Amino acid sequence: MAYGFETFKTRIEDGVLFAAISSPPLNLIGPEFVSDLLALMDRLDADDEIQVVVFSSTDPEFFIPHVDVARIAEYGKATAKLTGSLSGSLGGVFRRLSEIRQITIAQVEGFARGAGSEFALACDMRFAARETAVFGQIEAGFGAVPGAGAVQHLTRLLGRGRAMEVILSSGDFDADLAERYGWINRAMPQAELEGFVTALAVRIAKFPVSGLTANKRRINDISLPAFADVRTDAALFPQTISSPRGQARTKELFDAGMQTRGDVERDFAGAIGRLKS
Amino acid sequence: MAYGFETFKTRIEDGVLFAAISSPPLNLIGPEFVSDLLALMDRLDADDEIQVVVFSSTDPEFFIPHVDVARIAEYGKATAKLTGSLSGSLGGVFRRLSEIRQITIAQVEGFARGAGSEFALACDMRFAARETAVFGQIEAGFGAVPGAGAVQHLTRLLGRGRAMEVILSSGDFDADLAERYGWINRAMPQAELEGFVTALAVRIAKFPVSGLTANKRRINDISLPAFADVRTDAALFPQTISSPRGQARTKELFDAGMQTRGDVERDFAGAIGRLKS
Amino acid sequence: MAYGFETFKTRIEDGVLFAAISSPPLNLIGPEFVSDLLALMDRLDADDEIQVVVFSSTDPEFFIPHVDVARIAEYGKATAKLTGSLSGSLGGVFRRLSEIRQITIAQVEGFARGAGSEFALACDMRFAARETAVFGQIEAGFGAVPGAGAVQHLTRLLGRGRAMEVILSSGDFDADLAERYGWINRAMPQAELEGFVTALAVRIAKFPVSGLTANKRRINDISLPAFADVRTDAALFPQTISSPRGQARTKELFDAGMQTRGDVERDFAGAIGRLKS
Repeated sequence: MAYGFETFKTRIEDGVLFAAISSPPLNLIGPEFVSDLLALMDRLDADDEIQVVVFSSTDPEFFIPHVDVARIAEYGKATAKLTGSLSGSLGGVFRRLSEIRQITIAQVEGFARGAGSEFALACDMRFAARETAVFGQIEAGFGAVPGAGAVQHLTRLLGRGRAMEVILSSGDFDADLAERYGWINRAMPQAELEGFVTALAVRIAKFPVSGLTANKRRINDISLPAFADVRTDAALFPQTISSPRGQARTKELFDAGMQTRGDVERDFAGAIGRLKS
Repeated sequence: MAYGFETFKTRIEDGVLFAAISSPPLNLIGPEFVSDLLALMDRLDADDEIQVVVFSSTDPEFFIPHVDVARIAEYGKATAKLTGSLSGSLGGVFRRLSEIRQITIAQVEGFARGAGSEFALACDMRFAARETAVFGQIEAGFGAVPGAGAVQHLTRLLGRGRAMEVILSSGDFDADLAERYGWINRAMPQAELEGFVTALAVRIAKFPVSGLTANKRRINDISLPAFADVRTDAALFPQTISSPRGQARTKELFDAGMQTRGDVERDFAGAIGRLKS
Repeated sequence: MAYGFETFKTRIEDGVLFAAISSPPLNLIGPEFVSDLLALMDRLDADDEIQVVVFSSTDPEFFIPHVDVARIAEYGKATAKLTGSLSGSLGGVFRRLSEIRQITIAQVEGFARGAGSEFALACDMRFAARETAVFGQIEAGFGAVPGAGAVQHLTRLLGRGRAMEVILSSGDFDADLAERYGWINRAMPQAELEGFVTALAVRIAKFPVSGLTANKRRINDISLPAFADVRTDAALFPQTISSPRGQARTKELFDAGMQTRGDVERDFAGAIGRLKS
């Protein structure tokens, strides 16, 4: 089928593309994910039948935990396939996602931290499972600035005080607190999440397309940052993550088990808090 | 009395004008409402005694369900009486409302959808009855962009994700959810609503007028959109609502009973979801 | 010790400066507080060891009730010690606080009204005790515009409708409502507050400094107002507070016991509502 990708399992129904992220063992963002997402958006541009895209995960425990820290240069190279003035950064790829014609919904179960949170923030809406979803913007724990949209989106959605807390603490925020802070649209019981999101997606997909596009554009006109800000944040991430202490803390977390299916990834906030470097 | 209008029942007490919308059978926004609102604002401009205006509805089930869809051209003509560079659009009329000297409070019971929600959003504050108030921005269901302020206000109040959900879904949102999303100041029990709003209005009306005006202006300076955006949205509404599918869906809803006191108006979100056109 | 001040009791631990406001009998903002705050910021600029500052109060009932209304000219003179283009206003002093390199957290118990609320708003985050914290922006009750940041921060954090309510009503808002409105990050039980804030501060203080600074700057770039707006509000406060009715209402409140440890300060919202002038 037309929408088969290495890192997404897809299904089309009622004008909705259901794209489940499936990149074992952990759904880390690597070059394959970036390439697939770019190819997916190119196809969506040329597709008249799909009006709404629902992003979920085939792994109930991990939505997207963060980028593959061992492959930053590699996925960075993949972002160069993005055309236009934001080429060459994950922030640019996610900004393109925020501007595609189709309406996008993130259906979040499990951990969505770092660029996983930023991917969800780039979507038009976010709904999350109360029991399992955990959000975190972990970059400050490595001495880094989130490079792919978190600073821009969280400051606008949460306001200055809560954006400061979320970003500077590198802490974990469950779905209920994420809802109270405005990070996501709503938290709901896991048993209801898929049904709710599917019904919403199918409903929207039946509406006249021109109106959806026009409304999305007008909302984006108000709420998305200037390209210069996207580029500034994108440049800050590699610059700040490569500081000596940032590198030492990354190594320490790798040694403790980061990027394996274990305690560090499950309690990332705790692991960051225990770092000695 | 000086404040008698066809579509508002008014009473002045303690420096507060209580203006109850009364335009049977449904409180639809038509040319009479627009003319009355413009005349009311002209009088308020020249009135030193009134410091606060409370808008409510004499119909406990319908605040303002939406514009009178059969009379768009007519009420459009009435908006031409607005002077200044926003003349000729409902968005311009509501923007003028946001900038009058007096402080305005919407006391909402019943359905406030479409331009009814936009009227409430144009007021300085909004309080709603938990049991009966229902908010909806229904234009996308007709392929249209809200033309009278919803895109601007909702994106700023709710943030990008929730504004997308509200506007793109054309769904119903009860008072509690509207409070959680920031659409309204607060939801409260119907039995307490009028007392709360009256006390708040009377309290504010006793404060020095110059301070109220200066504070309102400074808050507006930050939170109201540029005139160019008001005009852009105003132009988008007639353009998008007149698409062939928009017209077909409007006709289908009329045939099902829209604009009568029945199931369609009570379950507008459901009715939109069942459209076949 | 290096951080001894007349109006702050300080303690340094784990890279955190704990600065408890201690200016009996009421923690009013007077010239000593302004001078101390400016001196504190100068020292923090030159200090590499302190990464986070926690502001609390030694008085569990009064965080900062408001400025010392009898000494506006005096503390105004103290603000002239601020260098730069915002010199000469409390709004400029608080803006400087929002931009210091260190991360600042307000730990609020008791009354935080007027410039006390604005001081908390100038901090990077705000956490408050559910049982005792009360927030109020009381200036409109005197016919005045808040001059030290409230209009800017509250409009951005709470949105137009709730900022209008808070500022125009001059009402009291308890910690839970302040959380729902976005005025503070979170309300929590008083018994947990100090432990929570201390743990958060110590956690952040261990992170690489360069990343904290870079993140804070990027969030500030989006969320702080232009200097021209800081100056405009700063000029409006003395101009509006000195109106004849503003002066009469101030005198009436003084006669009733304002600025003593009594009923007026405990029920300021009620006292404003009962004014006859």
